[in-house]
Amino acid sequence: MRHVIFGESHGPAIGVVLEGVPAGLELDWDFISREMARRAPGKDPTATARREADVPRVLSGVFEGRATGTPLCAVIENTDTRSGDYARTKDLARPGHADYTGHVRYGGFNDYRGGGHFSGRLTAPLVFAGAVAKLILRRQGVLVGAHIKEIAGIRDAGDWTAGPVEGETLAALADKPFPVLDDGAGEAMRQAILTARSEKDSVGGKIECAVLGLPAGLGAPDYGYNVEGVFARQLFAVPGVKSVSFGIGEGFAALRGSQANDPMYMDGDTVRTRTNHTGGVNGGITSGMPVVCSVTMRPTPSIGLPQETVDMAAGADATLVVQGRHDPCIVPRAVPVIEAAAALAACQILGI
Amino acid sequence: MRHVIFGESHGPAIGVVLEGVPAGLELDWDFISREMARRAPGKDPTATARREADVPRVLSGVFEGRATGTPLCAVIENTDTRSGDYARTKDLARPGHADYTGHVRYGGFNDYRGGGHFSGRLTAPLVFAGAVAKLILRRQGVLVGAHIKEIAGIRDAGDWTAGPVEGETLAALADKPFPVLDDGAGEAMRQAILTARSEKDSVGGKIECAVLGLPAGLGAPDYGYNVEGVFARQLFAVPGVKSVSFGIGEGFAALRGSQANDPMYMDGDTVRTRTNHTGGVNGGITSGMPVVCSVTMRPTPSIGLPQETVDMAAGADATLVVQGRHDPCIVPRAVPVIEAAAALAACQILGI
Amino acid sequence: MRHVIFGESHGPAIGVVLEGVPAGLELDWDFISREMARRAPGKDPTATARREADVPRVLSGVFEGRATGTPLCAVIENTDTRSGDYARTKDLARPGHADYTGHVRYGGFNDYRGGGHFSGRLTAPLVFAGAVAKLILRRQGVLVGAHIKEIAGIRDAGDWTAGPVEGETLAALADKPFPVLDDGAGEAMRQAILTARSEKDSVGGKIECAVLGLPAGLGAPDYGYNVEGVFARQLFAVPGVKSVSFGIGEGFAALRGSQANDPMYMDGDTVRTRTNHTGGVNGGITSGMPVVCSVTMRPTPSIGLPQETVDMAAGADATLVVQGRHDPCIVPRAVPVIEAAAALAACQILGI
Amino acid sequence: MRHVIFGESHGPAIGVVLEGVPAGLELDWDFISREMARRAPGKDPTATARREADVPRVLSGVFEGRATGTPLCAVIENTDTRSGDYARTKDLARPGHADYTGHVRYGGFNDYRGGGHFSGRLTAPLVFAGAVAKLILRRQGVLVGAHIKEIAGIRDAGDWTAGPVEGETLAALADKPFPVLDDGAGEAMRQAILTARSEKDSVGGKIECAVLGLPAGLGAPDYGYNVEGVFARQLFAVPGVKSVSFGIGEGFAALRGSQANDPMYMDGDTVRTRTNHTGGVNGGITSGMPVVCSVTMRPTPSIGLPQETVDMAAGADATLVVQGRHDPCIVPRAVPVIEAAAALAACQILGI
Repeated sequence: MRHVIFGESHGPAIGVVLEGVPAGLELDWDFISREMARRAPGKDPTATARREADVPRVLSGVFEGRATGTPLCAVIENTDTRSGDYARTKDLARPGHADYTGHVRYGGFNDYRGGGHFSGRLTAPLVFAGAVAKLILRRQGVLVGAHIKEIAGIRDAGDWTAGPVEGETLAALADKPFPVLDDGAGEAMRQAILTARSEKDSVGGKIECAVLGLPAGLGAPDYGYNVEGVFARQLFAVPGVKSVSFGIGEGFAALRGSQANDPMYMDGDTVRTRTNHTGGVNGGITSGMPVVCSVTMRPTPSIGLPQETVDMAAGADATLVVQGRHDPCIVPRAVPVIEAAAALAACQILGI
Repeated sequence: MRHVIFGESHGPAIGVVLEGVPAGLELDWDFISREMARRAPGKDPTATARREADVPRVLSGVFEGRATGTPLCAVIENTDTRSGDYARTKDLARPGHADYTGHVRYGGFNDYRGGGHFSGRLTAPLVFAGAVAKLILRRQGVLVGAHIKEIAGIRDAGDWTAGPVEGETLAALADKPFPVLDDGAGEAMRQAILTARSEKDSVGGKIECAVLGLPAGLGAPDYGYNVEGVFARQLFAVPGVKSVSFGIGEGFAALRGSQANDPMYMDGDTVRTRTNHTGGVNGGITSGMPVVCSVTMRPTPSIGLPQETVDMAAGADATLVVQGRHDPCIVPRAVPVIEAAAALAACQILGI
Repeated sequence: MRHVIFGESHGPAIGVVLEGVPAGLELDWDFISREMARRAPGKDPTATARREADVPRVLSGVFEGRATGTPLCAVIENTDTRSGDYARTKDLARPGHADYTGHVRYGGFNDYRGGGHFSGRLTAPLVFAGAVAKLILRRQGVLVGAHIKEIAGIRDAGDWTAGPVEGETLAALADKPFPVLDDGAGEAMRQAILTARSEKDSVGGKIECAVLGLPAGLGAPDYGYNVEGVFARQLFAVPGVKSVSFGIGEGFAALRGSQANDPMYMDGDTVRTRTNHTGGVNGGITSGMPVVCSVTMRPTPSIGLPQETVDMAAGADATLVVQGRHDPCIVPRAVPVIEAAAALAACQILGI
Repeated sequence: MRHVIFGESHGPAIGVVLEGVPAGLELDWDFISREMARRAPGKDPTATARREADVPRVLSGVFEGRATGTPLCAVIENTDTRSGDYARTKDLARPGHADYTGHVRYGGFNDYRGGGHFSGRLTAPLVFAGAVAKLILRRQGVLVGAHIKEIAGIRDAGDWTAGPVEGETLAALADKPFPVLDDGAGEAMRQAILTARSEKDSVGGKIECAVLGLPAGLGAPDYGYNVEGVFARQLFAVPGVKSVSFGIGEGFAALRGSQANDPMYMDGDTVRTRTNHTGGVNGGITSGMPVVCSVTMRPTPSIGLPQETVDMAAGADATLVVQGRHDPCIVPRAVPVIEAAAALAACQILGI
């Protein structure tokens, strides 16, 4: 299954084309709508005030409620756009954002309004694609879920590399507006976000994602086929992701082999490991334990505080105070986005 | 440029085929040999005792000392192999290694001797490929270098995200047998490695890599084209890499936007940033600042201490004491390997 | 540049996503509309009676009239659909059509109405993509044009492999409703089509296409890169194409080397060949002469005469008399479609 | 399964790397050697006098006689090379050959000796790859075979589009040194070849190839997936192929739909067609009938007669009389090469 996402924040519409959806897949719209709602703006006081229906319209690839197997295109019309907010600061590159790099890359022809193709809004069709992927995976007994692991230095409880992860845990997280394992930690994170917003600032964080039910033996060590690489390629395509790790990830750097290695044992006929430090992948191949990956997301670059920047038209230094509506922290809304990317990666390594 | 690496640790030979090498490229054998030597086993007391000449023989794609532009195949014969060491424990999966996952993936037909295709020895042709990539990049003023950032919890000095990185720094590192910025820290790391070895254990670490001279505007935000994804795909193909990050990477999680954003300014006609927290990439596109990426490498899985494992033939629990020659820490020898992966990624985003 | 075409004949809409359109390209809508009109149904008495506006709506990738460089999605709504015509014979596979193969491929979940994704209507977004490709090529001095080479055994005059082809010739053909070099031959072809239609039958034919202005030295001999393979891959994706050849193509089988080889000479500083039997490609690489390719298109499978077939639901033999609107010959309307495929191929070998 | 072929005619060695060979595949060396022998030079008086053992040496990917599933590299050393023959005419481009196009493509750095990477000798590793592909296909009941359809205008008997093709027919052809269905026609072809050689000239021809046993429902109509495109991409990578067609191919141009369509009927539970004009593919998807494709191969460009050409170094017109050893007709030796390309394509559409 391949996907291509198109659209700009303030253009006519955004959307996605999915090639290779298995014919006959039932498009469960309750599920898809729920996934879209998890990412939708305006659901939590910590998020941006922009509100959109975000109901994808399927143009092709579905007949009588099921996938035809031919390319599936879904579009979301852009309705609530206030371009004026952005035109005022069109030439002032927002530090940490793609204004300058996009300007160079596209020779100044990119649609700058609202970040254009770089807008976080483009993650809506990604969540749609991920919802389709999850429906495919569900038929094979594969589940994908994630939690906020850290925001503003505040860490969630729980350790998904200490052993197996339960499907119920993932299901419960999907129902939470602020998906953490420890609601106390979650409340502290929310306060940190609100504080940052009140100070016209933003905060970053981490998301941890688990894929349950993948059989052992998928992937390969080679370039282009190894499981970590396949996941990373999808995960780094999510705006704001600056780090991707598996299992205990950076934690490996301070451990000895005797601490890091996951002891193996037979559970009946099945080979398991007591811990899952490696995150379900050894030598680029799945071990049968959950695939556990983590991403770090940068703080929202668009902040209300004055920033040192450049005027791209004038070629001169400038000071920028960003106006407009922005999430002070993209991590909560990014949880279903990271799940979507992981679900697409899981389909890839399953050869779907 | 595409590459495919082939070979098994104890088979007749290992090697690589490179497609798309620019015609006319001079194969600078002094440089290539130096790169191969940097990775070669046996160069430092902390490394494995296996010694091989590791001289690649070019079978194709080079004529009168220059690349023809057609596929370039280089092979390295395997000469110093002691298969006996491994046959004894063939059915006992080494925890943390790909013995079990490879067994499942390849239905038991993989060459288990010395790790087969999963062996760290396969990084020799990768370094060769990277050396060719570096020669290509050198013609365009692009330099690649790396240092050991951390081993066994001991961190190197220096901060490559605080501002620009100098080419001289990279050149000096390439000449060091133990490439750190702070030799005092390096000596502490070496002691930690030797201590771990004396205790039949191993240690992990981190490598930080910089690519200098890439122009702004390379890459794209989209899946498959974004710079982080292109680099990550190459880096995760290096055995033992469990985390890939850009700029300050996981450090973003605890920062505010006002701290994380890199202030921009005009340096003459050039847009620069005062810090380089983002690692030279915004929105999946290069900014013109150095691309700085870090990887975390797990401790060598093969350790002499007894480990809980399974007998894959018997389907029973077992205890394993690994024999044979193994680096107690792969990080020092992995430095040129990570550089090679980064050099191949840099070629990709340059469209070579 | 990559493209993916989506849609079904009687679904909500059809369309295409183009990745990699050069930023800044001016979308010349006069030109695009003209190209769309060349393929549109209902323009000639020999064609189907179905009439559609076929005006593509651009959803993304264009800002202020120019390509942004990010994915460009264009959709064409389906308006004039008479599904009833098809439902009656839904289970009777039309011989020569994809009814049966599509049914097996997609497990019966394909949208059977009007041929669904297999409909010739899907060539409309292909022509749009080709028009964009032609605009790109035009900036580089590359022209694409085609003529009907043969219909129902009646051959057009002219020999594009005897020497160079003029740009004026291509321009004149693009203005013709029935693009032949010899209008007398064209009139005979049209009569043959009308005769076939009056006899409830259909006819096949050939189209010859030339790409002018490609420099020498593009492509490579290797799998995946050779010019003939790149063109063939695009051309065989056009419904109804059963043969692709270059230069004199099948004519090589009866010639001697001394007749077939194109004599070479210097035209000032430029190497040229007196004839162009090879169609501008040697060893998978362009020679600087026009790339000349020909395709053979099968007769429209949907005919009004009774045909021996199977009932896919009943698993029984059956007789079919196809109703509905069908071109008795798809060749005339396929001319801009073949040009579109060739234009996309030309972009590929130019590295666009 | 992917393959990359490397090497130059007069370099150290030629070879191929195969990725994705199914683990456990038994490398049947009797079969592989037989395939190599079918293509080997010097087996027939009509062929070149160059003799090489052409025994591939496997460097990787095989352990204890079976494929490991990791990349398989096989090399063939070049031993019988007479570079002197070529150096004399290094700057004189042979018309119809890639001397000029390769010179431009590779900036003059290509290995010109014996055609370098463009040499027909590079088809030896392709035949090896095809032999591996055939071993894979054999396990799935898929057979590949071919016959010379035409040489110098003389046509073989038999019509593989009139109905099914028998496996015995293919097996018998594989045993023939000059694989035709009608030995009388074959003898006339051989005489035509010898006559052309005696007149210092060469002749072209056609090869028809059948793939038996592919189930219905493979492939897709879309670009990159359609069966004709997948086959064409492999077939056009064979040097000298200038036309690829399916079923009756160019014959469709002169037929009516009522003649061209293959009548369908139930053969027990199986859908079959009485004729196979379409060559086993409808809408880019297999029908379950044999996939029948034909290629046209140009006459050997290297002929002993004087030819008008250019001196690439001097930039001046020149006359060329080619020396050295060349097949006056490459068609007979190309039969197993075309089969190899078709076998690789069949693996691709089977998802191997």
